[in-house]
Amino acid sequence: MKLRARPIDLEAGGKSIVILHKDDAGFLGLHSLERVKLIHKGQTLTAIIDITEKFTSPGEMVVNYEVTSKLNLNLGDSIEVQHVSNPISVGYVKEKIRGFPLNYYKYKEIVKDVVANNLSDIEMTGFVSALDARGITMEEAYFLSKAMIDTGKILKIKGKIICDKHSIGGIPGDKTSLLVVPIVAAAGLIIPKSSSRAITSPAGTADRMEVLAPVELEINDIVRIVGKAGGCLVWGGALDLAPADDAFIQIEYPLGIDPLLLPSIMSKKKAMGATHVVIDMPTGRGAKIKTIGEAHNLADSFIELGNRLGIKIACGATYGEQPLGYAIGPALEAREALTVLQGKGPEDVRAKVSQIGGILFEMVGKGDRRDVARLLKSGKAEKKMRQIIELQGGNPKVKPSDIVVGDKTHDIKADRNGIILWIKNAEIGSVAKRAGAPKDRAAGVLLYAKTGDRVKKGQKLFTIFASNEAHLSEAIEFAEANVPVIVGSSLEEKMLMDRIPSNAPHRRAFMLDR
Amino acid sequence: MKLRARPIDLEAGGKSIVILHKDDAGFLGLHSLERVKLIHKGQTLTAIIDITEKFTSPGEMVVNYEVTSKLNLNLGDSIEVQHVSNPISVGYVKEKIRGFPLNYYKYKEIVKDVVANNLSDIEMTGFVSALDARGITMEEAYFLSKAMIDTGKILKIKGKIICDKHSIGGIPGDKTSLLVVPIVAAAGLIIPKSSSRAITSPAGTADRMEVLAPVELEINDIVRIVGKAGGCLVWGGALDLAPADDAFIQIEYPLGIDPLLLPSIMSKKKAMGATHVVIDMPTGRGAKIKTIGEAHNLADSFIELGNRLGIKIACGATYGEQPLGYAIGPALEAREALTVLQGKGPEDVRAKVSQIGGILFEMVGKGDRRDVARLLKSGKAEKKMRQIIELQGGNPKVKPSDIVVGDKTHDIKADRNGIILWIKNAEIGSVAKRAGAPKDRAAGVLLYAKTGDRVKKGQKLFTIFASNEAHLSEAIEFAEANVPVIVGSSLEEKMLMDRIPSNAPHRRAFMLDR
Repeated sequence: MKLRARPIDLEAGGKSIVILHKDDAGFLGLHSLERVKLIHKGQTLTAIIDITEKFTSPGEMVVNYEVTSKLNLNLGDSIEVQHVSNPISVGYVKEKIRGFPLNYYKYKEIVKDVVANNLSDIEMTGFVSALDARGITMEEAYFLSKAMIDTGKILKIKGKIICDKHSIGGIPGDKTSLLVVPIVAAAGLIIPKSSSRAITSPAGTADRMEVLAPVELEINDIVRIVGKAGGCLVWGGALDLAPADDAFIQIEYPLGIDPLLLPSIMSKKKAMGATHVVIDMPTGRGAKIKTIGEAHNLADSFIELGNRLGIKIACGATYGEQPLGYAIGPALEAREALTVLQGKGPEDVRAKVSQIGGILFEMVGKGDRRDVARLLKSGKAEKKMRQIIELQGGNPKVKPSDIVVGDKTHDIKADRNGIILWIKNAEIGSVAKRAGAPKDRAAGVLLYAKTGDRVKKGQKLFTIFASNEAHLSEAIEFAEANVPVIVGSSLEEKMLMDRIPSNAPHRRAFMLDR
Repeated sequence: MKLRARPIDLEAGGKSIVILHKDDAGFLGLHSLERVKLIHKGQTLTAIIDITEKFTSPGEMVVNYEVTSKLNLNLGDSIEVQHVSNPISVGYVKEKIRGFPLNYYKYKEIVKDVVANNLSDIEMTGFVSALDARGITMEEAYFLSKAMIDTGKILKIKGKIICDKHSIGGIPGDKTSLLVVPIVAAAGLIIPKSSSRAITSPAGTADRMEVLAPVELEINDIVRIVGKAGGCLVWGGALDLAPADDAFIQIEYPLGIDPLLLPSIMSKKKAMGATHVVIDMPTGRGAKIKTIGEAHNLADSFIELGNRLGIKIACGATYGEQPLGYAIGPALEAREALTVLQGKGPEDVRAKVSQIGGILFEMVGKGDRRDVARLLKSGKAEKKMRQIIELQGGNPKVKPSDIVVGDKTHDIKADRNGIILWIKNAEIGSVAKRAGAPKDRAAGVLLYAKTGDRVKKGQKLFTIFASNEAHLSEAIEFAEANVPVIVGSSLEEKMLMDRIPSNAPHRRAFMLDR
C-alpha cells in the first residue's frame, strides 16, 4: 500500500523506524516490531514498525531520522509499504532463547544484523539475556568471536609478534596500561593498544590518555604511529573493530550483565592483530573477581578461546582490594602515571606494572619483570611515552605539574586515630564520578593513605577535586553518606565486615566493565 | 539543572521519555535509559532518558507526548531536571536475571512499575527473558499471580460458584467458548467470560463474539448482564483486570516465549472472581501441546497454582491435530457456532463442547456431558445465547445467513483422488490471516473435508473468503505455496511425515497464545 511520509526529529541509534496508524498496520497484518519494506524512487529500505492511533491518521506514516535520511524523504512523499518477514536472524535469536547452541553461520547472521541495526531493542535484549541465562559453550564463544571479527575491520600491523594487554577492570585509579605500553614499546616490541572510555568507572584508559594526547585516531594514523614508535594508546570506539560490541554494551549495561565478556575482549584483540596478550585480573573483596578460584576459571576460558583464535594468552590475578596508587580521575591519574615514568610515584603502581609487563616479557622471551624495572629506571619508558604523545598530537614536553586538575576542592579527614581498615573501590570511584569524572577530566579524588596506614584524627584521608560547586557538593554529600575510607581503632571494629539489617536491601548488581 | 522543553509528536505506549543532549546527560552523570526527575510548576514526573547529539542542543530537551501531557508543557518551558536513581524494581529485575527467586514484595514492585510504564523495553525484556530462561518456582508463580491481581481491578459478581473456561489455544476454528458459555449459563450457573482478541491466530473469542454483539463493555455493564443472564462474552483487554499482562505480551510476542502463561491466565481468572475453571488443552501434532505427558505436566501446574489462589481447576486434553469444525475466521466461526446452538453443525464441535462443558458440570455437581447435549438439543442454550447477545447490545434475532462473509472467494481443490492425510493447523490459520482475518471479520477459510475423509480429484477442499482482491491473492499464493490440506493416495505417502533437507531451515518458534 502507499503511505504519505511525515518525518520527525527522532533518531534511533541507527535503527530505521516507521510509525503506522493502527488501521494501516492491521490492513498489512502487522504487529509492533515487525518489519516493512519501503520503496521510494527505486530505493528500498527495511524498517521496524511501531503502531499508534494518536499521531498519524490512516494513510500517513511517521518516519524517523534514519529513514528520512536513507531514503532522502520530504514531508508528504508517497512511499510504497510492503509486509516483509522478519530477518532470518530473529529466528536464530529465538533458537538461542529456547536454549539451543548456535553454529557460526547463525551467529554471523545475528551479528551482521546487530551491526546493521536491523534488530529491535526487544530482540537484542532477548538475545543478550539468552546468552547470559543459557550460557555459551567454548565452541559458541569461538563462533561468536569470529562473527564479531568478520563483521568489522582488521588492523594490519607488520610484525611476527604483536603484544597487547587488557584489564578486566574494576579498580579505581588503575593506570597500568599507560605505563605498560611505553615500557613494552621501549623494549623494541610492538603493542598497538586500543582502549575504551569509562562505562561505569571514573576513568577508562582512553580518558586518561586523552589528558596527554588526542586518542581518536584513524586506522591509517595508528599503523603509521605504531610503525614509528612500536606502540600507541588510542580509543577503540570509532575504529570499527568488532563493532557489534558497542551495540551489545547498550543492552548489557542497564541490565548489569556481561555474557559477551570473552568474545568481546578477544574479538577486539584479534581485530588488532594481537598474537600475545596478557590479561590483568584484579581480584579480591571489592573487585569484580572475588576469589583466586574465579580468576583461574576465567583465565582458563581466555586461554582456551585464545588457542582457538590463534592468540597466546597469559593471565595475572592481581591484588584488587583497594585503588591502585593514590590518584583517581583522568587528569590526576595521567599526572601520577607521568610521575611513575620518571622513576617516582606510588610503589604499588610500580610493582603491578612490573608484574604485568614481566608476564608479557616472559611470554615473548624478552626477559622478565626486572627488565620492566630497568626500562622505567633508565628513563627509556618515559622517552618512549613522550614519543607516543608527540606522534598522537600531544605535547611531548608535558610535566606532571602542567596537568590541570579541578580548582574546587574539599578534604575528607579522619574522625579518629587509627588504622585504615579498607578502602571501598566502588564507593571511592563513585565520589570521583559525582565530582564530574570522567566527562570532566579535571575531576577526581586524591588519596593520602592506603589500607594498613596509621592515621591521626583530623589528618586528611583524601581530597575531592571538581570544576564546579554543584558537582563538588554532590561528591561531598556522597562521600559523607558512604564513607569510602574506613578508619578503625580496634580489632573489634575490624572483625565485623558488614551488618545486614533484617529488612535487607536489594542485592547490588555486578558487572564487568570492558 | 534547568532545560528548555521541546515537545515532539511521539508517544511511547505510556512511557515518559525525554531526550537530552549528550553534554547535558554527561553533566548530570547519566547514561541512556537511566532516569531523571522533572519538576515543573510544582508537579514532578520521573522520565526515562535517551541521549542524542543531533536533535537537541545543550540546554534543550526533547519531551515525548506522555511527558508533555502529564506536565502540561509548552515549547520552551523551563524544566528543572535532576538525576534520580532507577526504581527499586530494576534491582529486583537484575536479581531475577542473575537467577535468584523473588518474593511477593519484589514481584509486586516490578509489576507495579510495569503497570505504571516505569520500566524501559530493555528492562522489561530482561525480566521476561529471565523468567523464561531461569524459570519460576510454583511459589514464585503464586507471588507473580498475586502481584498481577493486586495491581488491577477485581470483578465482583454475587454467587458462591463462579464458573470459567479457558483454552490454551492454537487450534484454528476453535469456537468452543461461544458455545460453552450459553450452555453453562442455561444450566443456571454463573459464567462471566472475558476473552482476548487474536494475537497470532486468525480469530480470538472476542473477535468471534464481536460479530454477534459488542464486546467492549464496562465492568458495571458486565455485572448487570451477568446478574440477568448468568453469563457474558466480553473483551477483557480494557477491563484493567491484571493489566500487567498486556505489557508482558508486547515483549513475549516478538520473542516467541511465554514464561508468564500460568500467572497470566490464573491472575485474570482470579480477578474475574472465578471459583471453578475448566482448562481446555488442545494436544497433538500441530497443536501447542504435543503429547499427553506435556498436557499432564501443565495441568498439574494449573491445579497447584489454582489451589494456592483458591480456584478449583480441572483440565481436559482435547484432540488438537486439525481445526475444530469447518469454519475459520470471525464471521464464519460465529455463523458455525450459531448453527451448533440450533442443534446442527459439525459433530466434532458438538463433541468437544460436550466434553469441556461436561467437565465443568461435574466439577460443580450439576450433571455431566449428557446434560450439555440436552441443553443444546432443547434450544435452551440458543435462547440463552440470544439473551446474552441482546444484553450486550447485539441483534438477538440474528440468523446464520445474516452474517456477512467476504464476497471475494477462491476454491482450493484436490489435485488427485485420495484421502486427507492431515490439515496443518498453523498453515490453514495463516491462509485465513493472509485473507485479512481477524481485523477483517468477514475474511477466513471454510473447509469441506477433514482428516480421514475421501476426496476426488477436482473436489473442493476449502474456500478462501476475503473482502478485497489484494488480500485474496495473498491468501491464494500462501495456500498454494504451503499446501495446508494434504491429500495422499497411498500408504507410502502417509509414512513420510516430513523431509528435512541437508541445509535445514531454522527451527520454527513455538508460542502459547492466550
